Amino acid sequence: MIFVMRKGATEEEIQGVVRFLEEHGLRAHLSRGVELTIIGAIGDEQVLEPLPLQALPGVERVMPVMKPYRLANRLTRPEGTVVRVGRDTTRTTEIGGPELVLIAGPCAVEGRELLRSIARSVERAGAGVLRGGAFKPRTSPYSFQGLGEEALRMLREVGDELRLPVVTEVRTVHQVEPVARYADMFQVGARNMQNYDLLLEVGRARKPVLLKRGFAARIEELLMAAEYVMSQGNHQVVLCERGIRSFEPATRFTLDLSAVPVLKRETHLPVIVDPSHAAGKAHLVPALALAAVAAGADGVMIEVHCQPEAALCDGEQALLPTTLGRLAADLAAIRRLVNEADYLRPPS
Amino acid sequence: MIFVMRKGATEEEIQGVVRFLEEHGLRAHLSRGVELTIIGAIGDEQVLEPLPLQALPGVERVMPVMKPYRLANRLTRPEGTVVRVGRDTTRTTEIGGPELVLIAGPCAVEGRELLRSIARSVERAGAGVLRGGAFKPRTSPYSFQGLGEEALRMLREVGDELRLPVVTEVRTVHQVEPVARYADMFQVGARNMQNYDLLLEVGRARKPVLLKRGFAARIEELLMAAEYVMSQGNHQVVLCERGIRSFEPATRFTLDLSAVPVLKRETHLPVIVDPSHAAGKAHLVPALALAAVAAGADGVMIEVHCQPEAALCDGEQALLPTTLGRLAADLAAIRRLVNEADYLRPPS
Amino acid sequence: MIFVMRKGATEEEIQGVVRFLEEHGLRAHLSRGVELTIIGAIGDEQVLEPLPLQALPGVERVMPVMKPYRLANRLTRPEGTVVRVGRDTTRTTEIGGPELVLIAGPCAVEGRELLRSIARSVERAGAGVLRGGAFKPRTSPYSFQGLGEEALRMLREVGDELRLPVVTEVRTVHQVEPVARYADMFQVGARNMQNYDLLLEVGRARKPVLLKRGFAARIEELLMAAEYVMSQGNHQVVLCERGIRSFEPATRFTLDLSAVPVLKRETHLPVIVDPSHAAGKAHLVPALALAAVAAGADGVMIEVHCQPEAALCDGEQALLPTTLGRLAADLAAIRRLVNEADYLRPPS
Amino acid sequence: MIFVMRKGATEEEIQGVVRFLEEHGLRAHLSRGVELTIIGAIGDEQVLEPLPLQALPGVERVMPVMKPYRLANRLTRPEGTVVRVGRDTTRTTEIGGPELVLIAGPCAVEGRELLRSIARSVERAGAGVLRGGAFKPRTSPYSFQGLGEEALRMLREVGDELRLPVVTEVRTVHQVEPVARYADMFQVGARNMQNYDLLLEVGRARKPVLLKRGFAARIEELLMAAEYVMSQGNHQVVLCERGIRSFEPATRFTLDLSAVPVLKRETHLPVIVDPSHAAGKAHLVPALALAAVAAGADGVMIEVHCQPEAALCDGEQALLPTTLGRLAADLAAIRRLVNEADYLRPPS
Repeated sequence: MIFVMRKGATEEEIQGVVRFLEEHGLRAHLSRGVELTIIGAIGDEQVLEPLPLQALPGVERVMPVMKPYRLANRLTRPEGTVVRVGRDTTRTTEIGGPELVLIAGPCAVEGRELLRSIARSVERAGAGVLRGGAFKPRTSPYSFQGLGEEALRMLREVGDELRLPVVTEVRTVHQVEPVARYADMFQVGARNMQNYDLLLEVGRARKPVLLKRGFAARIEELLMAAEYVMSQGNHQVVLCERGIRSFEPATRFTLDLSAVPVLKRETHLPVIVDPSHAAGKAHLVPALALAAVAAGADGVMIEVHCQPEAALCDGEQALLPTTLGRLAADLAAIRRLVNEADYLRPPS
Repeated sequence: MIFVMRKGATEEEIQGVVRFLEEHGLRAHLSRGVELTIIGAIGDEQVLEPLPLQALPGVERVMPVMKPYRLANRLTRPEGTVVRVGRDTTRTTEIGGPELVLIAGPCAVEGRELLRSIARSVERAGAGVLRGGAFKPRTSPYSFQGLGEEALRMLREVGDELRLPVVTEVRTVHQVEPVARYADMFQVGARNMQNYDLLLEVGRARKPVLLKRGFAARIEELLMAAEYVMSQGNHQVVLCERGIRSFEPATRFTLDLSAVPVLKRETHLPVIVDPSHAAGKAHLVPALALAAVAAGADGVMIEVHCQPEAALCDGEQALLPTTLGRLAADLAAIRRLVNEADYLRPPS
Repeated sequence: MIFVMRKGATEEEIQGVVRFLEEHGLRAHLSRGVELTIIGAIGDEQVLEPLPLQALPGVERVMPVMKPYRLANRLTRPEGTVVRVGRDTTRTTEIGGPELVLIAGPCAVEGRELLRSIARSVERAGAGVLRGGAFKPRTSPYSFQGLGEEALRMLREVGDELRLPVVTEVRTVHQVEPVARYADMFQVGARNMQNYDLLLEVGRARKPVLLKRGFAARIEELLMAAEYVMSQGNHQVVLCERGIRSFEPATRFTLDLSAVPVLKRETHLPVIVDPSHAAGKAHLVPALALAAVAAGADGVMIEVHCQPEAALCDGEQALLPTTLGRLAADLAAIRRLVNEADYLRPPS
Repeated sequence: MIFVMRKGATEEEIQGVVRFLEEHGLRAHLSRGVELTIIGAIGDEQVLEPLPLQALPGVERVMPVMKPYRLANRLTRPEGTVVRVGRDTTRTTEIGGPELVLIAGPCAVEGRELLRSIARSVERAGAGVLRGGAFKPRTSPYSFQGLGEEALRMLREVGDELRLPVVTEVRTVHQVEPVARYADMFQVGARNMQNYDLLLEVGRARKPVLLKRGFAARIEELLMAAEYVMSQGNHQVVLCERGIRSFEPATRFTLDLSAVPVLKRETHLPVIVDPSHAAGKAHLVPALALAAVAAGADGVMIEVHCQPEAALCDGEQALLPTTLGRLAADLAAIRRLVNEADYLRPPS
């Protein structure tokens, strides 16, 4: 932590900061410049984090030096984390290993037969995880909200038939238990990225968590949300970039693909990308999926529907199964290219 | 709802949209222009809202004409809503009437004596509601998270002593019951504005709700969040602008004061402003509070602390009690001026 | 300047930075912490500014301590600057003094009689400067681009008749000479805030400059643009907040009123606000103008038109002359209140 | 153009809009819905564009139906435009054809020998155009501003030696003539994207223009800027995405790769990406360059320096020549894959 004192700060104010640091078990290191005095805090910076340092008399600015995330920090696990998804009735899919992971399925589970038909097509395309919403977060209370527990049962049934692990969104604390029962991975949606009670609850569960970036969350805040989950002992977290809010109306959200190489450098957790929700339009999804894998993503999550114009939720952005199959082959080819490009590796 | 067909849309595609509308009980109104065909949907547009209209073959764009919020729409209650906060052990404070409402208190409840001392000063300054956090949403799991139910009890006790109604944040569904027991108004924080389960739960309770705008929420989305609460029968909702995310780092958030006159025109619900969280720095708060009232806000919510540099939460942005008193008098003066400026009134 | 070294930086890299600083005439101050080494640069930090410090081997981050603006910095003129606008055929209007300044007029000069009629009404409302565009920057090449030099002549003529100083936009270097001839103040528009050649050119002229904030410019960048003008010897700069780009579509831009108190603290230059372009809708302008003055602005710039629905440019946002008169009186009342609120003063 | 009338608009107001349209040579098409009246304008919508339609009495909202760009619209040239860069002393490089184009070189030209050395390395890596700044736009007036005309001469000399066409930024109208003399392509920088006088001037020249997206410009505004250039007869325009401003501080700008497929669909002009300025950090550039090509870009523009830590401008983001070579091969491989993926083609 570095304290920059106000120009004209008094000696008393400077000594006040020094004393404050010493009282908290740190050493102060003074640099008196021509115009400004700077005080470096040496020792365990973490004890200062909860304190209103900026409110200390004479302090102009406080600049943290350490990253606030610890468990998620790449330094704690430089080799990277591989998250395993599945149960004894399914295959096990690894996210974060050399192979690209395709997570695909309908936005919402709308019925057993439709789900089965979509699931078969995504399985044929090489998907490693089946997705499908049971509890849908919708901007309007008048929109379709999902089939709830009934959808969970269908998801489980179809997943078991195809031996595909399934992921579904959990929207609130008391859905954690039923979702844990039926699904193989929790999804925490963008609107809940800072729903801290939910993060703590899935942190106490023992299933992998797919954590989506809030659409106004900084990368550092996404990592702090992961830190909430991990602080409860659950380190099986996969991060997902899905678009941030900007002034550009041509897409629903602005997919921030720079977040992929930034995250790969900052954290050991796997990183995937959801181009469907960012684009909001099916015709943009394939190009963005290819770009995501080229940027280094460990996987992509794509919405698929056999009859998009009849979908009860977000049909505008759903790919047809036939497109998915051809796209998947190209995604895998780019993944191989990226795996071999050692100039992309962070320096170790 | 207006459908703009793609240039070169076939007659079959055009008739497909017409049929689609008729199947849903609406009439289609065709305009065949030089270059484009446009189809207007006449009838109850609401039945179309949940459907993936953009995915219909040949459709280029769908433009809604109606506002998606109904209960919150100003048209349903042009005279405006007055929200009453209080219980038999306190005074009743009206939000949305002619008088400006000051909601003030510490960011977090840190202890009984400190709370009492701050509460007395805000009461002297003319505050109508006492605020204080019991369950704090914090970016880091390592920061102070609030004293929980103990804080609720202190808040109630001090509120009763001074006959001041109290408001406190509710972060998750299972806190709704205890908060309802001790507090007079729920606060739903910016990070939970789209926590729909929480919105539904406070909508089922029978206490006023102070609903803060998410920092990446459009004004329309804030109104849809209010609509969630109101859809359960609770119409006592106060909206709160508290800053949105932008590229400007000089303030913690960018206070969007234009939202105040926009909201006053769009909805009958009262609108207040929280300049403390937006600014993130105490020295900016008074100017922004004055501006908020000049922009037409029905109230302001301000954080106060007797010893900001020792606060356990957000001390940087807390005003001293002495400043609050002088500010409050000026806020009231501006409110009177605004009340008399009939050129500000929306045309009726 | 503070250099944070990468975790695991070698001794050689650390000494490399020390040597680099010494070669540039600064002293290095090392703090070796538990995890990180930090190097403070003591001496004239300005010599380092143009250099790619982040590219030095072993450096993780470089944090500047000094503000990059010098001439615009409040510290160089704590008493504030008053900019005087006018010539011998007009009154002299002071911007930055105790009195609020109203700059008003049509978006574009469309004809002599119309200009005269609008100008009379703004003069009656108490305006201190008449505005009117001659060279209009328009998003579309097919929109009305202004009457050019003819408009300048009308502006001068009407200004002289009413003894009102006039301001008009200068869009490119070779318009500086004619605009200087006819107008009393240059306006540099938001789209040109980083048109450095234009900034240098008006910096060489000897007329006041009204510099609008670019709609994606940080406050610091606005101050650096002022620094460009001032670096050429012209210190008569008035800064203007006019809205920034955000994700909110309800207004054309998001008026950032926090910029007003931030700027008043950072710089000695006067600060005004243009609510018309930010709002984009006339009915929002009065509330935002009141808010701007309450936030501490030294003036407001407002578009006025006698017949908005026939205006050739931005008629949607123009106030009627009658509204302006009543608004002006309230603006002045709020200014008096702000002038007396000593708790708003930055600590000296 | 579609006019949505205010709820409760009078018959007189409705007829006013109808008359207004007819006076401008269009036909009005009324749809009287249950709650709202909508008026479609049928005919040449372009005549309405400059008019303040929103200010017509009784009008709630005006929704344009046609795209405001005409010359740049893909519909006018569905087969796409190929821009040819070069002169008789160099090869001719095609941008927009099947082959990927690499534009590379130093941020600024700093000296003849350094330029030659960098140019050789980029030529070896397969670059089709050499870049190098002569007139640099810099946020601070105290930063290195480029060597001006001297740099232009060096660029020409080195370009001719290697038979590489050269591109350099033109910052203001009076630089258009000298830049046209020495360079083979104008670059209009992000800060000048709405410097309309400059756009018109390069529009009158007869050299290709590389037009960078302003960092707060919507895609539609970028296309309108191209329209300015094209309106003067110069249709040789290449668009360049280089990052937009967002709230995310991890990168200098947020590279908006969704803009690539959106632009490819909306316009026939070639689209390239500059990952260097967006990232601001060299280690992020390769991943973003790969992603840009996967998203469908026709080329990438990359900054290269032999000794980044000594660069006079933006050394932090410059790649080493050795990295460039290996990256270039992978970029070409991805381009081939994209060329063959027919599911990416816009429907014709």
